[in-house]
Amino acid sequence: MVEQEDVIWMRQALELAEKSLYISAPNPRVACLIVRDGQLLASGSTQQAGGPHAEVMALQQARERGVNVAGATFYVTLEPCSHHGRTPPCADALVKAGAGRVVFSMYDPNPLVAGRGATRLRQAGITVDGPLCVEQALAINAGFFARMTRSRPWLWMKMAASLDGRSALPDGRSQWITGPQARDDGHHWRARSCVVLTGIGTVNADNPLMNVRAVSTPRPPIKAVLDTHLRLDPKAALLDGTQCWVFTHRRDPEREAQLADRNALVIPMPLHEGQVDVRAVLDWMAEQQVNEIHAEAGARLSGALIDAGVVDQLLMYLAPKILGQGRGVADITALSGLDDVEPFEFTDVRLFGADLRVLARQRDHWDALLQAVGGASPSDFE
Amino acid sequence: MVEQEDVIWMRQALELAEKSLYISAPNPRVACLIVRDGQLLASGSTQQAGGPHAEVMALQQARERGVNVAGATFYVTLEPCSHHGRTPPCADALVKAGAGRVVFSMYDPNPLVAGRGATRLRQAGITVDGPLCVEQALAINAGFFARMTRSRPWLWMKMAASLDGRSALPDGRSQWITGPQARDDGHHWRARSCVVLTGIGTVNADNPLMNVRAVSTPRPPIKAVLDTHLRLDPKAALLDGTQCWVFTHRRDPEREAQLADRNALVIPMPLHEGQVDVRAVLDWMAEQQVNEIHAEAGARLSGALIDAGVVDQLLMYLAPKILGQGRGVADITALSGLDDVEPFEFTDVRLFGADLRVLARQRDHWDALLQAVGGASPSDFE
Repeated sequence: MVEQEDVIWMRQALELAEKSLYISAPNPRVACLIVRDGQLLASGSTQQAGGPHAEVMALQQARERGVNVAGATFYVTLEPCSHHGRTPPCADALVKAGAGRVVFSMYDPNPLVAGRGATRLRQAGITVDGPLCVEQALAINAGFFARMTRSRPWLWMKMAASLDGRSALPDGRSQWITGPQARDDGHHWRARSCVVLTGIGTVNADNPLMNVRAVSTPRPPIKAVLDTHLRLDPKAALLDGTQCWVFTHRRDPEREAQLADRNALVIPMPLHEGQVDVRAVLDWMAEQQVNEIHAEAGARLSGALIDAGVVDQLLMYLAPKILGQGRGVADITALSGLDDVEPFEFTDVRLFGADLRVLARQRDHWDALLQAVGGASPSDFE
Repeated sequence: MVEQEDVIWMRQALELAEKSLYISAPNPRVACLIVRDGQLLASGSTQQAGGPHAEVMALQQARERGVNVAGATFYVTLEPCSHHGRTPPCADALVKAGAGRVVFSMYDPNPLVAGRGATRLRQAGITVDGPLCVEQALAINAGFFARMTRSRPWLWMKMAASLDGRSALPDGRSQWITGPQARDDGHHWRARSCVVLTGIGTVNADNPLMNVRAVSTPRPPIKAVLDTHLRLDPKAALLDGTQCWVFTHRRDPEREAQLADRNALVIPMPLHEGQVDVRAVLDWMAEQQVNEIHAEAGARLSGALIDAGVVDQLLMYLAPKILGQGRGVADITALSGLDDVEPFEFTDVRLFGADLRVLARQRDHWDALLQAVGGASPSDFE
């Protein structure tokens, strides 16, 4: 039986899970609270891949504090794993620690776990409750669950524009439509992603760094450029020694060797309507364990991503300005009527300095993801 | 001395003043609370022009309740009037009622009052405190104060667009970019305005009603059309018998007579760059005691209003859609660079159904208005 108190602790655990936002990929962001008699005994969150999982971190903190956790309740934002991966199974660690009860937020969609963690705990005589707060837990790990359940990463598209949707003046001037707080927030989104994706048009026009500033990250995202005709200049600023993927349809051994010297890997891709096939690129990325993609591109690629139906979320910064003229944010070609529009829904709106940050989700994609992980839990509708 | 308790009561009075939003123009929306020992004895708000002011309404309610208000504190959102207008001076009524103390929000900018109301009360031995919560009070009556202090009404521009600033598909289809809740809210804004302003282009293209639906109003706004070449069809749907102003540069006695039959008054105006001079129109409206103008027009007139520097506020509904192509909301011609942009600032953002409503104020216009009424009061900065 799940009580209101369980919901409160689980929400606290989900907040703690955000501590892993920039570090745990390709593993999900997970947190664990150990609670007894309304007291938090210890807590932990997932470390970098290969490092300890949340449950192990929490048990370690309990040991350091000299706290006995036997009989305590463990709140875990994901079903404890039951298999030997890079680390031993967490379910075994909870059994060994003498957990009295385990409350989990979501079943692990990893086919190697998928309910077996909960079963392992129950067989050891532990009370197990869940799922709980599924929508909130899914939002933190949408990329992980998307990769696991649909074999395609979760992709958000970052845009910055005036209130009337202009990303730059007609001559291209755009520095800066939005202010420093909005730009800094954009770096947080880059930092949490596995891949920062852009197009060769943007690289050639603006020569952007496409790196993470404003946030320190031990795990910088991989850069990726869609470059159908392999026009990427090996001297481009974004080739700063960190890993870069270049998706192209043209082979050019000499150019590829120059790019390889800059740590840029050229990946051949099929064409779709004369351009690198976006869906094939995303499929390939899922195979590389990419959970989340931060797309930050010009109107052409942004429009192509929407046309391809692969945009899961919008991350839009709106400046309190009316420019009246200038470039749009997305050149969509496939639109035949208003009913044809991708169905987004607003999920969060807030001010960053003078600018507005708007988050919107592709509703069908989200609903499908929620269904794939077993649907919402009652506590999601309070 | 103003206490925290005074701020709380004044805010309650300001909320009550919103009851007059759709009825009191050209008079300001004002409320009065009568309070003693932390107890609300009676309250009232301004009625239709010519009807009782807020103070009189509150005193009347106190009488009906058989409550003695002698020595009580009166919270009034505007300095009580001291002159004989359509009704006798409220300051005299407060003196006669034996008010112990009067707290007011703003000085009345009407040169016939302008501090004399407060003086009259003090001369009668009443303690008078204020101004208080000036920014909030100004927001409710921006139009009244704009007309009084700068002889130009307060103008907001209503727009509805996709998240990327498209008000319609390229072929003009726009029904409906935003949903029913957003459209209903738009009618509240029409209802509170004195004039609903549009351009002949919109009238000829869409034949809109431009009336107030979704809200019942005893005082429908006057319709106004900018129509440089007097092309308005006397059979246009917006000519439904309610008053309409047609601003033009062309005289055509026959057309004017036809329009007059439909209760449309043709007003000749000078030209500015080949179009009816917007500033001259607004000056004329101020002389007709117009406080607030709700501009709802196509991209051409909206752009002209911004070019003319007369937009005080944006009322924008954003649908969670990316159209990618289609019409913009404002054709601005005078923009030479990003520094040239009108300086708006977001003041309120909220969801109406699936859509976002964004309010933004022209910062310089607001600051000037605030200065003109004497500046902010300390309680505005909590």
